Amino acid sequence: RLKVRHIEGWEIHTKIGWQTEGILRMLFHVLDPDVAKDPEHLIVYGGTGKAARDWNSFELISDSLMELKEDETLVVQSGKPVAIFKTSKYAPRVLISNAMLVPKWADFNYFKELEERGLTMFGQMTAGSWNYIGSQGIIQGTYETIAAAAKLYFNGSLEGKIVLSSGLGEMGGAQPLAITMNGGIGIIVEVDKKMIDRRLRFKYLDTWTDSIDKALDLALTYKQKKQPISIGLLGNAAEIYPELLRRGFIPDIVTDQTPAHDPLIYIPEGLSLEEADKLRQNNPQKYIELSMKSMKKTVETMVEFQRRGAIAFDYGNNIRRMAYDAGFKDAFQIPGYVPLFIRPLFEEGRGPFRYTSLTGNPKDIYRLDDELLAMFSENKFLVNWIEKAHKYIQFQGLPARVIYLGYGERDKFGKLMNELVRIGEIGPMWIGRDHHDTGAVASPYRETEAMKDGSDAIGDWPILNALLNASAGATWVAFHHGGGVGIGYSIHAGFGLVLDGSQESYERAERVLTVDPGIGVVRHADAGYERARETLCKKGIKSPSIKC
Amino acid sequence: RLKVRHIEGWEIHTKIGWQTEGILRMLFHVLDPDVAKDPEHLIVYGGTGKAARDWNSFELISDSLMELKEDETLVVQSGKPVAIFKTSKYAPRVLISNAMLVPKWADFNYFKELEERGLTMFGQMTAGSWNYIGSQGIIQGTYETIAAAAKLYFNGSLEGKIVLSSGLGEMGGAQPLAITMNGGIGIIVEVDKKMIDRRLRFKYLDTWTDSIDKALDLALTYKQKKQPISIGLLGNAAEIYPELLRRGFIPDIVTDQTPAHDPLIYIPEGLSLEEADKLRQNNPQKYIELSMKSMKKTVETMVEFQRRGAIAFDYGNNIRRMAYDAGFKDAFQIPGYVPLFIRPLFEEGRGPFRYTSLTGNPKDIYRLDDELLAMFSENKFLVNWIEKAHKYIQFQGLPARVIYLGYGERDKFGKLMNELVRIGEIGPMWIGRDHHDTGAVASPYRETEAMKDGSDAIGDWPILNALLNASAGATWVAFHHGGGVGIGYSIHAGFGLVLDGSQESYERAERVLTVDPGIGVVRHADAGYERARETLCKKGIKSPSIKC
Ligand SMILES: NC(=O)c1ccc[n+]([C@@H]2O[C@H](COP(=O)([O-])OP(=O)(O)OC[C@H]3O[C@@H](n4cnc5c(N)ncnc54)[C@H](O)[C@@H]3O)[C@@H](O)[C@H]2O)c1
Ligand SMILES: NC(=O)c1ccc[n+]([C@@H]2O[C@H](COP(=O)([O-])OP(=O)(O)OC[C@H]3O[C@@H](n4cnc5c(N)ncnc54)[C@H](O)[C@@H]3O)[C@@H](O)[C@H]2O)c1
Repeated sequence: RLKVRHIEGWEIHTKIGWQTEGILRMLFHVLDPDVAKDPEHLIVYGGTGKAARDWNSFELISDSLMELKEDETLVVQSGKPVAIFKTSKYAPRVLISNAMLVPKWADFNYFKELEERGLTMFGQMTAGSWNYIGSQGIIQGTYETIAAAAKLYFNGSLEGKIVLSSGLGEMGGAQPLAITMNGGIGIIVEVDKKMIDRRLRFKYLDTWTDSIDKALDLALTYKQKKQPISIGLLGNAAEIYPELLRRGFIPDIVTDQTPAHDPLIYIPEGLSLEEADKLRQNNPQKYIELSMKSMKKTVETMVEFQRRGAIAFDYGNNIRRMAYDAGFKDAFQIPGYVPLFIRPLFEEGRGPFRYTSLTGNPKDIYRLDDELLAMFSENKFLVNWIEKAHKYIQFQGLPARVIYLGYGERDKFGKLMNELVRIGEIGPMWIGRDHHDTGAVASPYRETEAMKDGSDAIGDWPILNALLNASAGATWVAFHHGGGVGIGYSIHAGFGLVLDGSQESYERAERVLTVDPGIGVVRHADAGYERARETLCKKGIKSPSIKC
Repeated sequence: RLKVRHIEGWEIHTKIGWQTEGILRMLFHVLDPDVAKDPEHLIVYGGTGKAARDWNSFELISDSLMELKEDETLVVQSGKPVAIFKTSKYAPRVLISNAMLVPKWADFNYFKELEERGLTMFGQMTAGSWNYIGSQGIIQGTYETIAAAAKLYFNGSLEGKIVLSSGLGEMGGAQPLAITMNGGIGIIVEVDKKMIDRRLRFKYLDTWTDSIDKALDLALTYKQKKQPISIGLLGNAAEIYPELLRRGFIPDIVTDQTPAHDPLIYIPEGLSLEEADKLRQNNPQKYIELSMKSMKKTVETMVEFQRRGAIAFDYGNNIRRMAYDAGFKDAFQIPGYVPLFIRPLFEEGRGPFRYTSLTGNPKDIYRLDDELLAMFSENKFLVNWIEKAHKYIQFQGLPARVIYLGYGERDKFGKLMNELVRIGEIGPMWIGRDHHDTGAVASPYRETEAMKDGSDAIGDWPILNALLNASAGATWVAFHHGGGVGIGYSIHAGFGLVLDGSQESYERAERVLTVDPGIGVVRHADAGYERARETLCKKGIKSPSIKC
């Protein structure tokens, strides 16, 4: 229906100025055709993650934001604006709950039924909370994971280390770039030549070959030179992984980003893409059987790589579970990527910190790149990311940046941003984040897998996170169900913060950017993580139940 | 361990005065031995509904409340105080989430396991949110249900109407009093003579007999005289209901409050209490079989009563489901009590409004009784309840009152209360409510059963309710899982509000007591309820998606 484009410039469309104008602009931004996957259907990303229930709701939300008074709050129930209440000047301007169900009814099929009856909407993590910034988030997330692996196992650098992975799709395509950004050598197995070409074209991938020998030669040469390179290797992971092992090659790191979550999309070994298409049509049961067998082979090889010294991990595509179901009982010998790499970051309150220039000015982002480099010059991962991002990242919609910042850093940088807005050095800014963050999500198959105290399924923390961000005066607060891993498997929260340079927005930023990562540090300290406890004690976070 | 008693008088124990003192006093109040069911184990009511995770947590919560500053917020995760953050003067002082789980893990047995490992706590509805006020809540709830039935079917009075029910236990024992308070004639079948005696002693029940003839004679005499009376009839409902039917007697209203939810507690027909005890021990399978058969018989009779003109309803004990499982396919011909009687109240934002005198002064409650009678003199159910409550209700812990008030009435009365505190006519007060309320709960087997648009399981509303109350500045906000119907079957929210007579507490009261019932009216209007839509339009609640 509507063709929505992101809004730029200084003209204000709302009654009370930037606080609501910022919300309006983020809503338009996530639905910009350059940002959203399927804007016509209001779908932003992540399968069917939507920004509003329907076009009528979208228009009513826009109108409401324009008319909202400075002590009013708009209430959005699964993408539909249902009420406007008088709260207070210090309260959020919008409160959102998306896709939440009573637990016993939290089932995918039932959700679909309710959705079809127009009663709910899937908001993914950042679609329905108007926090999506395009593929930059995926690249940075992958970069951060690879960087964390480098830190944990290789003294902070992938120089001269070979990473073996597979899949160059929507998420997986970020792998080669993230590996070379970290100084490493990547071999990425991909079965579809078109996907290799696409990544070459975008310069995410340096070169390609269909010869295992050539790929190995090249990788080993660069290993000796300690220079970064990414190599696309045309083939099927289920064939190539075992063949590499047979030749005695052991990568330094091995993982997989094929679409293992869906055995009808995954390409089984031995089939061309055309043959796969045909079999999928004619005999889906047979297809699934072959897929599962291939995944089993891949994971068996990964476990063997691991036994021989490689760092192996599951990258959130559920391939372990598939291999297990196909009969490989040792599949879970491979750890998930969150407990290994992301949890240590979460322990320090570290997580994705996003911002956009609300006036659409790329210079504001570059200016803040410089400020970041100055403020966090000792953080070489951050410095490296900023430099590479500056070089590689194309803006989509409103110019944006995402970085990982820890407790104490987020509010420091947020306050600086507001100060720069105040003195007119940059225009008004938005700050938000992914729900995939330290204190914002309960998701036992991903973010809270294998918690030290067994609290994987405890759901109080995201609720407390949302209530805290509302109490601290975020510009908007959203609570969601089912993001990342699907209906029933996760609950999580997010927020948006508009910085207009005022004293009030300074105070909101200080409070929100402290309580938000703060409850994450507390959540991990409470679960017995040492680094979290140290962070809590060192930074002076008050907890009645944790002794320093 | 500790023996906690409610705190009275004017001495302040907290750093910042009544705002936190009020919270502290409600916490002590719900654990007073006169209020709590098993205070030694911190259990307040409703099975195992607790006020704090353990005694150490209780002490840390108390200490934290005493030390809390005026811009700080204490965070409680399932009864354990985990953090204190700087938020703002306008924010809640305490945020609570109890027993929340990621939906796919929301199972009773798994919850018990997590509870045993010390990771969570069951908060019921008002135990873990420090909103419980003893048995007054049950009597008033039952009174309100019976009154709603009178209103719906008998022009507002039960004069000359006979109500047949059964069970004189913890909840069911309120029935005879609630019936006579409404001017009606009650026959309550109870299998245990001790329970009859107990209700006679408390004057909840007027008289008793073990003869069906006598009970009928008495009831019919009073029916002609149009005078209220309550009659305990010793016997088993599964025998007596069919026998009454056989004699051609049709009650005006029929229901049942035996413990049908647990077929091992329910007494099957034909067994004495001793025989039941023995069979329960020796052959529980057989026992359950007999119970289910008895329940089937009861419900079959209720459906027949209904066919012949009686008003029949399920009173939240799940007896329909039991009869259905026992083979009676028409069991759900009988509606649940919420869709019938409570939903029309919820549509108007009407629900339980509770308050206590924080200084422990009964005179403050009586003074407010008078104010209520003056302010709502045209509401004859309210007037009747206040008069009867004054006469029958004994205070437990802090003197308390519960009334049903609608949208527009709650804030009006709350503001008056604050004004009376300000001018020193009464001492500081607490206002709160049950989570069993208009916009605060999603519970498809009770509060949201059979919603007009099929939105029974939609869980966004309680989330929005909690976020709104936090944004509006309730003194504390709590979000819970599993209250009433058990783990997995409900999510719900509550709040506490301390009135200290200040301008600030006036504003908090105005906002909270408007948004809280307001989102309930919106929830029902959104689901297509006419009366809710009318209320919304008449009272000027703003909703972008509902046209007036
Ligand atoms: N780590 C995370 O945060 C995260 C987040 C979301 C999703 N994921 C998971 O990562 C996986 C990949 O996601 P995507 O968006 O890139 O998927 P996609 O479908 O866009 O791309 C998958 C790619 O893998 C290739 N492929 C399929 N079978 C293959 C095989 N046997 N050998 C080699 N290549 C093969 C396909 O040709 C395709 O290019 C999914 O399972 C997804 O759920 C991870
Ligand atoms: N409507 C509501 O809001 C609500 C709320 C909570 C519970 N309930 C349900 O109401 C039911 C009763 O609760 P309670 O607290 O009073 O239970 P209870 O166990 O305290 O009392 C039950 C009484 O029923 C009697 N009884 C048992 N079997 C009988 C039979 N066959 N015939 C006659 N009397 C019999 C028992 O002797 C006992 O006195 C429960 O199932 C409960 O879950 C309703």
